[in-house]
Amino acid sequence: MNFRTDLALERRELIYDNVPDGVKFEEKIEGKTKITRIKIETKEGEEALNKPRGNYITLEIPPLSANPTESETEIELIAAEISALISQKGCVLVAGLGNHNITPDAIGPKTVEYTLSTRHVAESMPQFNFRPVAAVAPGVMGQTGIETGEVIRGICDRIKADCVIAVDALASRSVSRLGCTVQISDTGISPGSGVGNARRELSQSTLGVPVIAIGVPTVVDALTVAQDAVKSGGEAFIDKSKLGSLMVTPREIDSVVTSVSKVLALSIGRALQKDLSVSDLYFLTQ
Amino acid sequence: MNFRTDLALERRELIYDNVPDGVKFEEKIEGKTKITRIKIETKEGEEALNKPRGNYITLEIPPLSANPTESETEIELIAAEISALISQKGCVLVAGLGNHNITPDAIGPKTVEYTLSTRHVAESMPQFNFRPVAAVAPGVMGQTGIETGEVIRGICDRIKADCVIAVDALASRSVSRLGCTVQISDTGISPGSGVGNARRELSQSTLGVPVIAIGVPTVVDALTVAQDAVKSGGEAFIDKSKLGSLMVTPREIDSVVTSVSKVLALSIGRALQKDLSVSDLYFLTQ
Amino acid sequence: MNFRTDLALERRELIYDNVPDGVKFEEKIEGKTKITRIKIETKEGEEALNKPRGNYITLEIPPLSANPTESETEIELIAAEISALISQKGCVLVAGLGNHNITPDAIGPKTVEYTLSTRHVAESMPQFNFRPVAAVAPGVMGQTGIETGEVIRGICDRIKADCVIAVDALASRSVSRLGCTVQISDTGISPGSGVGNARRELSQSTLGVPVIAIGVPTVVDALTVAQDAVKSGGEAFIDKSKLGSLMVTPREIDSVVTSVSKVLALSIGRALQKDLSVSDLYFLTQ
Amino acid sequence: MNFRTDLALERRELIYDNVPDGVKFEEKIEGKTKITRIKIETKEGEEALNKPRGNYITLEIPPLSANPTESETEIELIAAEISALISQKGCVLVAGLGNHNITPDAIGPKTVEYTLSTRHVAESMPQFNFRPVAAVAPGVMGQTGIETGEVIRGICDRIKADCVIAVDALASRSVSRLGCTVQISDTGISPGSGVGNARRELSQSTLGVPVIAIGVPTVVDALTVAQDAVKSGGEAFIDKSKLGSLMVTPREIDSVVTSVSKVLALSIGRALQKDLSVSDLYFLTQ
Repeated sequence: MNFRTDLALERRELIYDNVPDGVKFEEKIEGKTKITRIKIETKEGEEALNKPRGNYITLEIPPLSANPTESETEIELIAAEISALISQKGCVLVAGLGNHNITPDAIGPKTVEYTLSTRHVAESMPQFNFRPVAAVAPGVMGQTGIETGEVIRGICDRIKADCVIAVDALASRSVSRLGCTVQISDTGISPGSGVGNARRELSQSTLGVPVIAIGVPTVVDALTVAQDAVKSGGEAFIDKSKLGSLMVTPREIDSVVTSVSKVLALSIGRALQKDLSVSDLYFLTQ
Repeated sequence: MNFRTDLALERRELIYDNVPDGVKFEEKIEGKTKITRIKIETKEGEEALNKPRGNYITLEIPPLSANPTESETEIELIAAEISALISQKGCVLVAGLGNHNITPDAIGPKTVEYTLSTRHVAESMPQFNFRPVAAVAPGVMGQTGIETGEVIRGICDRIKADCVIAVDALASRSVSRLGCTVQISDTGISPGSGVGNARRELSQSTLGVPVIAIGVPTVVDALTVAQDAVKSGGEAFIDKSKLGSLMVTPREIDSVVTSVSKVLALSIGRALQKDLSVSDLYFLTQ
Repeated sequence: MNFRTDLALERRELIYDNVPDGVKFEEKIEGKTKITRIKIETKEGEEALNKPRGNYITLEIPPLSANPTESETEIELIAAEISALISQKGCVLVAGLGNHNITPDAIGPKTVEYTLSTRHVAESMPQFNFRPVAAVAPGVMGQTGIETGEVIRGICDRIKADCVIAVDALASRSVSRLGCTVQISDTGISPGSGVGNARRELSQSTLGVPVIAIGVPTVVDALTVAQDAVKSGGEAFIDKSKLGSLMVTPREIDSVVTSVSKVLALSIGRALQKDLSVSDLYFLTQ
Repeated sequence: MNFRTDLALERRELIYDNVPDGVKFEEKIEGKTKITRIKIETKEGEEALNKPRGNYITLEIPPLSANPTESETEIELIAAEISALISQKGCVLVAGLGNHNITPDAIGPKTVEYTLSTRHVAESMPQFNFRPVAAVAPGVMGQTGIETGEVIRGICDRIKADCVIAVDALASRSVSRLGCTVQISDTGISPGSGVGNARRELSQSTLGVPVIAIGVPTVVDALTVAQDAVKSGGEAFIDKSKLGSLMVTPREIDSVVTSVSKVLALSIGRALQKDLSVSDLYFLTQ
């Protein structure tokens, strides 16, 4: 089944009548944010959602303004979810996946740009109690000639990171979710996810350390846009050949990607540097 | 009628059975380019297409590569159409409309960036036989606080331009036309055209000199994407409320806008500087 | 005399023993800022400093951080000086001079980018009590084919601005002043000032309305760097032919220009929109 | 001795009367390019120039235009020197050192951007006879939290590269050499070179494979500018305290860095892909 979405939440919705027992689900509202937790526990669950077993947390947040400090409440919620999935000690490698030259694919590299790196100063500045954080945006294979997974693995091995946080742009089925949905999982990133570029797996089995994946959808495929807009009973009227592999993205994608990347970087910062406030982090990284 | 397209060609298609006599039409193929000419001659024609009377030439060209000199054949075709609509003498003001910070809206400003300006050297370098050309990208009202039409008019009056070429991003009804359709008209730009921002009219009646409009579609609205994908009989199944005012743009919009802008600038250059080849212009402006 | 500086302050220093009576001078310290006022009152004063008569206020401020709200004290001081030179009512046109593609020349265009334009909403949003402000970055003659002064004049006439604030990068004689000296004058901008590009005069006599010039030095010419480094008695040893027309700029010029531009835009905002705080302005324009 | 230059050529000039036997030197003119070869053969030579033993080839080329294909002659000369220093087979990793956000430091990252990567397609497209090339711009330690040398080593180990080409911005003693001098060496990059940032060594001893370093000067320190401008006998008059650690760079540094990076990328391409012409490479990478 081709779900045309990277969100576990949306995949579960699509098989609503056939969700196996091995897929647990709960949701709650925190302020203006809806938090959904999906846990895939069995092989049947993996097959049903075509995702590896593990936790998938989705936060549906209000649209972001240009000023990320306006979104402090949401940043704290995202940070709490990241924090719950990772160990509280050791060096973290933040890896920004995607192509910084293609705007809807640039969330990973831009998040890295706004992330506070501390690994090089953590020892020499003990007064700040920094957790060591490294951050790299390795580029895509078309630019580097190397599978992204290989670059990350080479760096991860070299610096002996204890955990990897991989940030990537995702595909969604719903235009209303673009730019305001954050999926966090502890399963890493599997081949073929992302916005259409097969990338080699980034996971505990390939890197040897836990891999937290954080993604935000920035594209919907055009067929899905059409299907979403057709009411029950009208599906047969859609001419799929007209839509091909077109990906749809909002016209204001430039500002969406910038805002999302700042919020993700601050959320990662809050999850990793317990002594720094959102304002501190914003001041240190803008 | 809301056509959801700025292309006269597509508006005519939409009222196919009701095209009045006052709308003339012809098409021909030149190599890989299809050239369509629509002429609106009467009030009925104006009302039918909701566009002022005049000539609308559309060139449907093959997808552009990153290297504009590869598209020399298409550049010559576009240049010939521009040349046919303007006087062969006098100072030309190229105005790039749109917001350079929003990628799909940046075709105007980027075309200006690649345009060869000669007005300041035309007299002092007579050996080049330059036609005087000025080029400005006035920004959008949200940035400047001034209607774009007012900025252009102020500059046009001041430098006593004999003709204005206004370049703008357009909306189309078809994703397959994005980035590879050029519409040229001698009617200027009317309020509310472009990608959704009302702009004050740019026309002979407001500027006092002929206004040639050149546009390339970069967005389709999402409802149109859905409608296009639905076969005859299925229209009623579309739930318009789900699509709102979303604009759809290709994922690779960054490179599309750059390529299109270079080709337009070279086409304008060829139309205005008869002594310079595409290679000369590319060399002088890249 | 070629002063190799656009700062009235430095020109006065250079003729220290020969300052005519028609050049008044006073200085004071406000916090960490040194404010110097030079007033040229006579023809002798004009000739001595090679600048038109009028007021030249220089603020020497501490180096700026990346976060402009950190510089609120300095912003208020700059705003107060701007405010003292202009009428408290009417439409203001902010003109950002210089080439945005050459980093040390980009202070004007970047200041415009961060300036709050209100002219288009001042009437429709009376609750904000906005003073009407328009802001344009007309580009340089090499890009547009039009003298910058002509573009500004065309727009100024068209929108009937009551005052122009022209922002430009300057040359200084001292590397220690780059990026942390603000000169404000009520005399407009004269031909040949700026960083070496002759631009047509922008002044009350050419535009018909008062012109406030705000400039910050970003370059020093290399000969001056050498001369500054040579102690008294060693001047004759300098081989001028080795330095030509080279301009010197700090290695971190990219971040300096961004920080300065944000601070100037906020200072202009504070001078013009009395009801908005620095935080309000930063929030509305970032 | 602090030479304030990374060019072996300039260091040798500075100790002209004391060049030990272990420093060989020859120069020749090819068209408009002067090629200088310095070979450090002994410990005395290493100490005299404060550089490791090996070959240092310097090409002084004419100023570059915006169009790199205009510089085909110089590209071929640079390519020939690179080719002479490396094996003709095996995978090459091109590493662009420096900070892409600081213009004079961006030559490394920008060269990578224009480099043709082929490692991922070399096997699947045998008809092109590509030599496998990977290219990465790892960012600087302040951004990533990781020593640049560590990042390169991690990737180099992972992909089993047979050779590394490290591209970096350099410091020179002469403003006339900025942007038009290329130094190529087979000794790698030592700590503390570059424009002032200590970087961990990149060399055969740390990476396990040959490391070719290619550098172009983009900065001169201000004290050197002053000293250069003072004739013999005047040195004592220079007040070093006034110049501190200021680095001088040309005002048009943005365009210089872009032109140099394109030329270096094409030169590397010519050295590695014998079947592709400069035009082919330009077409594939622009």
